[in-house]
Amino acid sequence: MLYLILADSELELIPKEIWNHKSVQKTARMQQKHPSEMLLDSSLHYQAMTTLSQGDRRGRPDIVHVFLLVANESILNRENILRIIVHSRHNACITINPKTRIIKNYSRFKGLMEQLFATGVVPTTGEPLMTLKKATLDQILREIDPDTTVLFSTEGQRINPSVYLGKEKTACIIGGFPRGSFLSAITADHIVSLYPSMLPAWSVAMEVIVAYEYTMNITYDSKET
Amino acid sequence: MLYLILADSELELIPKEIWNHKSVQKTARMQQKHPSEMLLDSSLHYQAMTTLSQGDRRGRPDIVHVFLLVANESILNRENILRIIVHSRHNACITINPKTRIIKNYSRFKGLMEQLFATGVVPTTGEPLMTLKKATLDQILREIDPDTTVLFSTEGQRINPSVYLGKEKTACIIGGFPRGSFLSAITADHIVSLYPSMLPAWSVAMEVIVAYEYTMNITYDSKET
Repeated sequence: MLYLILADSELELIPKEIWNHKSVQKTARMQQKHPSEMLLDSSLHYQAMTTLSQGDRRGRPDIVHVFLLVANESILNRENILRIIVHSRHNACITINPKTRIIKNYSRFKGLMEQLFATGVVPTTGEPLMTLKKATLDQILREIDPDTTVLFSTEGQRINPSVYLGKEKTACIIGGFPRGSFLSAITADHIVSLYPSMLPAWSVAMEVIVAYEYTMNITYDSKET
Repeated sequence: MLYLILADSELELIPKEIWNHKSVQKTARMQQKHPSEMLLDSSLHYQAMTTLSQGDRRGRPDIVHVFLLVANESILNRENILRIIVHSRHNACITINPKTRIIKNYSRFKGLMEQLFATGVVPTTGEPLMTLKKATLDQILREIDPDTTVLFSTEGQRINPSVYLGKEKTACIIGGFPRGSFLSAITADHIVSLYPSMLPAWSVAMEVIVAYEYTMNITYDSKET
């Protein structure tokens, strides 16, 4: 089983400090919601965010969305060998049921995330597809209890995937932020660099997912033609 | 060199038949544009599209967007070994300069595509990053003149990627539509199925890109640890 953890991602509700900023008020009026019920989105709230601490990296639900589309629609997930967890600012931890089909439209995806922040689970009746709780990265890892933990970072080493993907339970930690470094303290068995420059979260995810499919002979046995 | 062609994708301007529909008029008013200058988007124009021929598969700029984010940000593209071409309804053919950074925000991406449909090139001054011309899939393939052409389809065969990715110039054709079959007539050397059920375009793209990286030893030599 491969556990993909998007760590320190920038998915959060609009913080109180900027509720009264005009760019926030404008989007709240358009969506007929209170700012406290809306996701922070740097493409909409850029001006307001200049006053926020670490404002240059926050408000990126788009990164979470593309990461989820890539991971969730993969062959590995369809074969039920992938578990996806999104860890976000303020230690919001979202667990995705492998049966979930991620909404492809970005605005609707944001609406669903806002609902998840409000209720803690979506849908609110029937089998949960996404659940939200508070958990640090360390707590998430202790709960998974993996055989190997791999952290992806440009500061890591170039290692052949067969070295770290061969275990029964592998947890891979991918940064969900647009720039800078991990904010969480992380202990890992391997720190791996896939490429000298920073790749977006979904590019790391696709490399790991396909490498795992190959290691496990899920798509093609190397001997098969 | 790997050529990825997104074929029969559903990127087009709003067709004249539905310019006067109320859902189209509403989005035109909000964006202060004429319907003829706006992309058809099934998430916004769903009701109007029920009257369109093949309306159940049209208006999917979101598929093109995620496909481009996956392909363009890949290691293969950063290493300048990938060429990306989007073929769309009405034989609109978009060529992407490998240096392009695809806009991550969906609304802004749509705005850029609308500009591309209006002017044929973006940006309008300096080095072109995206160009639009009319070309059938057949014309696109003749221009590339690949050593091997591979078509991905659930009706194809399970073939080890090393069989079809080993050539100097490989053209891979991936369907850019949400359901149904290719509309273009296509001749290919290999028809390949990666999985029994239909995968979204970006999932096929990531499988092919990473397989090509492995075949070419771009990321990891199989002997390397």
